[in-house]
Amino acid sequence: MVHNYLQHNTNTQVCINYYHFIKVLAFAHTDMRPKIYLFGDSITEESFSAGGWGAALAHHFSRTADVVLRGFSGYNTRWAMKVLDKVFPAEMNVGNGRAPLAVTVFFGANDACLPDRCSAFQHVPIDEYRQNLHAIVAYLKNRWPSTHVILITPPPIDEVAHLPERTNEAARNYAKACVAVARECGAPVVDLWSRMHQFPDWGKAYLRDGLHLTLGGNKIVFEEVIGKLKEVGLSLETLPADLPFTDAMDPNDPLKVFED
Amino acid sequence: MVHNYLQHNTNTQVCINYYHFIKVLAFAHTDMRPKIYLFGDSITEESFSAGGWGAALAHHFSRTADVVLRGFSGYNTRWAMKVLDKVFPAEMNVGNGRAPLAVTVFFGANDACLPDRCSAFQHVPIDEYRQNLHAIVAYLKNRWPSTHVILITPPPIDEVAHLPERTNEAARNYAKACVAVARECGAPVVDLWSRMHQFPDWGKAYLRDGLHLTLGGNKIVFEEVIGKLKEVGLSLETLPADLPFTDAMDPNDPLKVFED
Repeated sequence: MVHNYLQHNTNTQVCINYYHFIKVLAFAHTDMRPKIYLFGDSITEESFSAGGWGAALAHHFSRTADVVLRGFSGYNTRWAMKVLDKVFPAEMNVGNGRAPLAVTVFFGANDACLPDRCSAFQHVPIDEYRQNLHAIVAYLKNRWPSTHVILITPPPIDEVAHLPERTNEAARNYAKACVAVARECGAPVVDLWSRMHQFPDWGKAYLRDGLHLTLGGNKIVFEEVIGKLKEVGLSLETLPADLPFTDAMDPNDPLKVFED
Repeated sequence: MVHNYLQHNTNTQVCINYYHFIKVLAFAHTDMRPKIYLFGDSITEESFSAGGWGAALAHHFSRTADVVLRGFSGYNTRWAMKVLDKVFPAEMNVGNGRAPLAVTVFFGANDACLPDRCSAFQHVPIDEYRQNLHAIVAYLKNRWPSTHVILITPPPIDEVAHLPERTNEAARNYAKACVAVARECGAPVVDLWSRMHQFPDWGKAYLRDGLHLTLGGNKIVFEEVIGKLKEVGLSLETLPADLPFTDAMDPNDPLKVFED
């Protein structure tokens, strides 16, 4: 198109300006690193606290990918739908803007709030939860067909902690719905509810207040997400480091590695 | 310019394309959040490990700013100079691309390696270290005049840990040079060397291997950086959250907050 335009247009200055803009545009968003977005509720928002699963991901990929925090405490899938355009602005993928490597979508803990308790305003009926998850996956895959959208189910609820808004049975149903959506969409899924239940003492080991994660719970989420990323081909073995490692330098001529 | 172009050009299709591109460009890089870059060596690269100062910053600003990790283990200021264009690509600030809120520049630990030991290839003479720091600050301020460039001095060296490549005296000199550069540039500086020395047991309390940070050391860096950011006006009190907090919602009409 640039070529045709240069042929047809007689306004040289505009030509130059236009060409300049196209050139700039071609490089727009040329950040050095691909990105992994973490989209979810409070379990995502607090994932960069000490020992958190988000920070662990960022540390793991510290020389290869940016891990971008998009956690919104208290949000359910209904509100997530309302903010998709802001969280993933359409302009992200113009020019050389790279599609994210992956997006984790981690909602359900608030959708599953009981509809007759104080947090009823956060409750989303399970059919709508399912539809919303479908829509979120479709939105992201439509935007970026190459991006791996990884669903994460809500964790179990430890009712010993007396969370009046939640039951483990409800969490289980929402987790099942999430797994079903993933199957229907062909998306990888971390079934956190089931994974945690494999350990008899899961309530104490993985949850600090009946819902949010302990260090052990964070470790499970980190390992499960790393595992899913690896399954779809995203690992330190496959992702190139963007700048030379020191041990690749010749001690007698360290600057040589920076020559292109 | 768009207006003039539309007046003069007769090729409607090109007009539309051009206008479309300008529109796209105007939104290019319109990510929802401003960014804080952490640029440095291994003490930055590992800052997202459990309890790390980088992760703590990301957690602190979890609803307001992205903390972007650009730590390169083993790097000195000479190599940092070689990679500036890749770490901070010129295209970052086209369109609506926002200048970073701040960049931390945290080098010196490797520059200060002794010139007659095994890590001599990492050594940078102190005058060059000073010049390089000046150049890095100038590069960033020239690109983004509004961005706060925060220098961080190398930490002390605990010689009890027997690091054959380093002495605390050398670290002190590089730290002093860093503080001097900051003064000359009018840039905020975290004098980590002096700050840590205020505590008698700093070697054990803040350094795990004579150079890299313990949890306590990470806490100091986090608090000092947060303090400097606050001094230049960047804090949770001044930075707007990009999406509504749940407690700002009307439980009877939670969707109302999403109406623009």
